[in-house]
Amino acid sequence: MEQPMKVEIITIGDELLWGQVADTNAVFLGRRLIQMDLQPQWRTTVGDNPESIGQALILALKRSRLILITGGLGPTEDDVTRSALAQALGRRLVLDEQALQDIRERLESRGHRMLSSQQSLALLPQGAKTLDNPQGTAPGLKLEVDSRLIYILPGVPREMQAIFEQEVAPALRKISTERVIRRRRLRTVDIGESALSEKLRGVARKGIRLSYLPQPWGVDLWLTAHSANAREAEIFLSRATRQIEERLEDQLYGVGEDTMERVVATLLIMRRATMAVAESCTGGALADRLTDVPGSSACFERGIVAYSNRAKREILKVPKRILDRFGAVSQETAVAMAEGVRKISGTDIGLSTTGIAGPTGATANKPVGLAFVGLAHQDGSFARRFLFGQDRLVNKECCVQAALNIVRQYLLKL
Amino acid sequence: MEQPMKVEIITIGDELLWGQVADTNAVFLGRRLIQMDLQPQWRTTVGDNPESIGQALILALKRSRLILITGGLGPTEDDVTRSALAQALGRRLVLDEQALQDIRERLESRGHRMLSSQQSLALLPQGAKTLDNPQGTAPGLKLEVDSRLIYILPGVPREMQAIFEQEVAPALRKISTERVIRRRRLRTVDIGESALSEKLRGVARKGIRLSYLPQPWGVDLWLTAHSANAREAEIFLSRATRQIEERLEDQLYGVGEDTMERVVATLLIMRRATMAVAESCTGGALADRLTDVPGSSACFERGIVAYSNRAKREILKVPKRILDRFGAVSQETAVAMAEGVRKISGTDIGLSTTGIAGPTGATANKPVGLAFVGLAHQDGSFARRFLFGQDRLVNKECCVQAALNIVRQYLLKL
Repeated sequence: MEQPMKVEIITIGDELLWGQVADTNAVFLGRRLIQMDLQPQWRTTVGDNPESIGQALILALKRSRLILITGGLGPTEDDVTRSALAQALGRRLVLDEQALQDIRERLESRGHRMLSSQQSLALLPQGAKTLDNPQGTAPGLKLEVDSRLIYILPGVPREMQAIFEQEVAPALRKISTERVIRRRRLRTVDIGESALSEKLRGVARKGIRLSYLPQPWGVDLWLTAHSANAREAEIFLSRATRQIEERLEDQLYGVGEDTMERVVATLLIMRRATMAVAESCTGGALADRLTDVPGSSACFERGIVAYSNRAKREILKVPKRILDRFGAVSQETAVAMAEGVRKISGTDIGLSTTGIAGPTGATANKPVGLAFVGLAHQDGSFARRFLFGQDRLVNKECCVQAALNIVRQYLLKL
Repeated sequence: MEQPMKVEIITIGDELLWGQVADTNAVFLGRRLIQMDLQPQWRTTVGDNPESIGQALILALKRSRLILITGGLGPTEDDVTRSALAQALGRRLVLDEQALQDIRERLESRGHRMLSSQQSLALLPQGAKTLDNPQGTAPGLKLEVDSRLIYILPGVPREMQAIFEQEVAPALRKISTERVIRRRRLRTVDIGESALSEKLRGVARKGIRLSYLPQPWGVDLWLTAHSANAREAEIFLSRATRQIEERLEDQLYGVGEDTMERVVATLLIMRRATMAVAESCTGGALADRLTDVPGSSACFERGIVAYSNRAKREILKVPKRILDRFGAVSQETAVAMAEGVRKISGTDIGLSTTGIAGPTGATANKPVGLAFVGLAHQDGSFARRFLFGQDRLVNKECCVQAALNIVRQYLLKL
């Protein structure tokens, strides 16, 4: 079996290194490379600093054959990638007349004149070839150095992605490796990492690596198969998946790109059921997740964010005596909200959330993190109690996941 | 001036390298280090692979004095960090009886028995000290190697953060540097990166570095001041901020940790105004963003996610003739939705969104990305038209941002 090609990603930007934003370009590139059976082995992040950028490139040239670099290609003063790479490679920075022309034409076709700051976009390390940028003005670059292949892409995600798909991916597909990687994600809910690993002891391991990715709202399992051919890798994956499915039953809610909201929308549509939601503590996040699914209008009728008690009474018809006696955060109110939203929207299912997201709002008996999810259907209604944590945003997420999971379990039993 | 201490972050995990999740631990650590005037210079990400983990550590020991490592400390088979580091350092892996005891007690105090897989958590590289994990079972580790300081933390974000705050941050604060870094974020809306850089030509540059972070819903500007003392750095930042404020006027909506939703909630509360929202294309995301703000119940009364035309008519009282004549995605419907939600909730402001988020739903005259935002107030109402892009989730985000910005501008003019 041929040695796999060493692949490295370098992302550039103070904002990445200093934690001001998540490195979504690294996410995109990692995922796309794996899909092409190219396994990144190193990822290095440096700031907008010519010296570090140069050192990162020299290190990557020593240990990797394919190098993908993003960031620092724009027109502003913090964009130093072109000059830093030229310097590290001992090459001159030259004005590429053709690139300058292309940039000017692209701008004019959109009705813009070229700003003087944008001329720097055509200054390239000698020997670099430009890659057309269909989404913006800064072209990508391609360089070959001692049989190492270097691609340099802008940091703006949609520009980076467009150049990658149009110019880089077709070239990479031609770089054959004799080795395939197949990954599959299995998504679980309602079980912790250690308990999961005990439950999965002894599942088929041939050719498979198992890894665990715990999050507050559920643990994702990743299966990785390495093999000489795609067919064998898929067999390994399928065998392990089947065994895991048997052991987990309904704690396993999805595979691959499945999300909880997509699973729920699909089940609703399959059963020709419609749903409306009434949210208090999740504040719109439940409707937001459901409407992230393209085509969700087929099953999702409406959502009510009844943040005030007045809204709970007026729109959802939650009886005043229930609010007075049990409080807004109670099993009884959750049930009344679910029944109310089901009734006013004429849907098959009504789903509700009410809780204390924090940081304020706790009382002696009702701590931050307490939440109830209610479900109303044609034959009745019920609510379940949860105790999440201290973080407002995590509590919203956990409660959305719990609410969707309750609908999922209800629909599975139908 | 003393040389700044070289700081490096190493994050471990196939899921990071292969792009299955964003590296949120890197975000957290970068941000916290900067707050303590410790500037990370390198970030390296490797997979769950003992050889790469070892190489990354050896490289970091050569170029950095403080090394923070996250990931691979858990109890499952993909957790190889402890053994990989021991091997790279040429140290034995020893069972720490005290750590074992602590882990067992912690588990028992929560009513769990110790699983056999969890015993591996107490196998430590010789010389390592454990750091108490208040959120989970895997302790963090601290090692000193040739005057290099190494902290190793679990990959689960809330565990990593808890150990960092409790055990690492207090120790790092004692590591004095003679140099301070101050960063400030200025957040803009309604202006592109190149136009922004032209507009800011010639603003005070003394001691300041400017960087641009463009996103589909607005460009963030970052000001960085390096100085020998905090007072001078703050003066540099304030001077530049003041000049930028003058040039941008209301395109600048926030500074530092400000978010658009926080700015809007604050303005509403300051003006003692209340708001309700009626959403179609944003599907709950607008209410979700507003309710992310702690205390938003003081100004946010309710939200209606009127996904179906029936909901628009029944709850929001959008006249049937408007829906028939102009369609759900129109200026007229946006206005009627905003007026409707204002009326039924008795708030000062009604805000609405309607549009085609995609990928389906476009017609000859109404492309994907078309959206309208409506605002109703005591003296009247209006709507604005937008044309976003092709991506459903980005369109939702952009429309939420546009809607919040319209309220902000309205409130500023009051």
